[in-house]
Amino acid sequence: MQTLTVELPDRHYPIHVGPGLLDDASLLTPHLAGRQVMIVTNEVVAPLYLERLKATLAGHDVHEVVLPDGEATKNLEHVERIWDALLAAGFNRRATLIALGGGVTGDMTGFAAACYQRGIAFIQIPTTLLAQVDSSVGGKTGVNHPRGKNMIGAFHQPRAVIVDTDTLKTLPARELTAGLAEVIKYGLIRDEAFMTWLETNMTGLRSLDAALLTEAILKSCSVKAEIVVEDETEQGVRAYLNLGHTFGHAIETAMGYGNWLHGEAVGTGMMMATALSHRLGWLDEAAVKRVAMLLEAAGLPRHAPASVSAERFLELMHLDKKVTDARLRLVLLKAFGDACITDEVDEGQVHDLLADWERQ
Amino acid sequence: MQTLTVELPDRHYPIHVGPGLLDDASLLTPHLAGRQVMIVTNEVVAPLYLERLKATLAGHDVHEVVLPDGEATKNLEHVERIWDALLAAGFNRRATLIALGGGVTGDMTGFAAACYQRGIAFIQIPTTLLAQVDSSVGGKTGVNHPRGKNMIGAFHQPRAVIVDTDTLKTLPARELTAGLAEVIKYGLIRDEAFMTWLETNMTGLRSLDAALLTEAILKSCSVKAEIVVEDETEQGVRAYLNLGHTFGHAIETAMGYGNWLHGEAVGTGMMMATALSHRLGWLDEAAVKRVAMLLEAAGLPRHAPASVSAERFLELMHLDKKVTDARLRLVLLKAFGDACITDEVDEGQVHDLLADWERQ
Repeated sequence: MQTLTVELPDRHYPIHVGPGLLDDASLLTPHLAGRQVMIVTNEVVAPLYLERLKATLAGHDVHEVVLPDGEATKNLEHVERIWDALLAAGFNRRATLIALGGGVTGDMTGFAAACYQRGIAFIQIPTTLLAQVDSSVGGKTGVNHPRGKNMIGAFHQPRAVIVDTDTLKTLPARELTAGLAEVIKYGLIRDEAFMTWLETNMTGLRSLDAALLTEAILKSCSVKAEIVVEDETEQGVRAYLNLGHTFGHAIETAMGYGNWLHGEAVGTGMMMATALSHRLGWLDEAAVKRVAMLLEAAGLPRHAPASVSAERFLELMHLDKKVTDARLRLVLLKAFGDACITDEVDEGQVHDLLADWERQ
Repeated sequence: MQTLTVELPDRHYPIHVGPGLLDDASLLTPHLAGRQVMIVTNEVVAPLYLERLKATLAGHDVHEVVLPDGEATKNLEHVERIWDALLAAGFNRRATLIALGGGVTGDMTGFAAACYQRGIAFIQIPTTLLAQVDSSVGGKTGVNHPRGKNMIGAFHQPRAVIVDTDTLKTLPARELTAGLAEVIKYGLIRDEAFMTWLETNMTGLRSLDAALLTEAILKSCSVKAEIVVEDETEQGVRAYLNLGHTFGHAIETAMGYGNWLHGEAVGTGMMMATALSHRLGWLDEAAVKRVAMLLEAAGLPRHAPASVSAERFLELMHLDKKVTDARLRLVLLKAFGDACITDEVDEGQVHDLLADWERQ
């Protein structure tokens, strides 16, 4: 097991990463606010890990909420089910919520904790690679609204994050690959050495070597923590975390959410951002090849969907919320490990890139 | 106009109090986060003050949500109506919510602001005396759940509070009196000089003398601010703000919410707490008479409802959330201006007091 401590302005919390942590009561119990514990999970994860977690919490007053799976459940109605369960159990301000599952479960549980009796304790046990490297740091919680994603929410930091790398054994390979897109992103925007490490170890990561997974997750969380601390108000470097996302969101929207996984769209988006950085003279041809090979090694797609024309692609990029006014605002790479954000890219150049892009 | 500045750990905000402030754009505009403004009010207040406030905000992109009146509307469904309106208007993170109304409007609007896109700016314009002296300080926002009051909520501080004392001219006399109960409470728990001032000026307050109202509201807010700052974690002196509330909540529950106004129940509750403090030897008989006369001058009831026996009263007090485990925890007075919290009062003594109490 390895541990990263995330420093917040007024306190800190640990992210423990390693195999078999789900059974280790000593990691959990110091962070419980009292005897009352409510586990929130979903119909896919519950049969796999709920009973084991409950056994770890033996001796506490443990209840559970099992929600349906999927991004479509990330709404206020399901958060209300968590609140209803807390009140039906008679839980007070010293209750603790535990999120056992992926990003959707974590976002909803965190929001439920943020607003139950004006804020109760909350522990994350993320079981997807994406949630492990993304939701573990930053404190963002919330739900979608019919008119927009993540429109309703709060900042609420966990007391602890426990990443049991063994849970990735039950994750579909395609979701593991989607999570690797975010891991690669941290190398690209901040740490060329980590990129080199990923090139060496991608096969081992995909075959779920626990030591390699532990290292990759820790490193990803520490890069994100660094960036979040540098930019608490979200005005500056935090935008680097969106590398590939403006291109990627356009793909997700065009294809309908769920057809391309978020990580797959971001993978292709990072490839596009890299290629654009090359056209601007910032990265050489060898660098573009390196990114292509790394994405391929992770199993990620690099070709945009055939059905989306360059014109439609540009239109969708303008709709993305990271675009202010008329000008496209893009995260690009000056070099590996050195991201930048710019709204000065000539739109004709972006159009040409999209028109030239190989479709699948 | 007078102004109190409330100091928070990381910033501060003004409470402006005086007649005619609703028309003063210079008090509002410095606190707007941008051009987008959503006013939240209710069906009783809107016909009285909405157009005037909109005139004051001329030049901004002003929308409004008009909710039904009453405590029964303080639920998630109505907060969702505020979020729907914000999204329908296309409002972003630099939008500002303004609560124009009583405590229910303020609590719901503050909560809507706390969770819209993880927190937007919020200004309070309270139009009831209770909201002016209570909700202006403390940052508590939220809604009721069928299983309990204020169960869902967040701490979210306003950018500014604007109290136009002229709005009290349209407040029913009974509600003004109920608000005076909370004003008197601040004198009893913290400031004997303020109590003396209230004895002198109660008639003027009830006839809505603007200068006297301004002074009473400012003083009340400053006592509450003092106490909240001393006790941010709600473990200690903040409980003094509940003087009369354990007795009062028992009356409210017994009679069904809305039959006795909260302030009326608290008024009778403060009388009971005063009488119990006398029985414990802390206050003399003259002190009890002083409180009785002050409550009477304010128009507040001092007799418990005839239908509630001493036994039932005690039972309801135990149900109150301020009671931990089996022992009653009561806020009492060692002297005027010197409250204390104790769970060492003999329950037989409380029973005797309730049995002896004059009923109406």
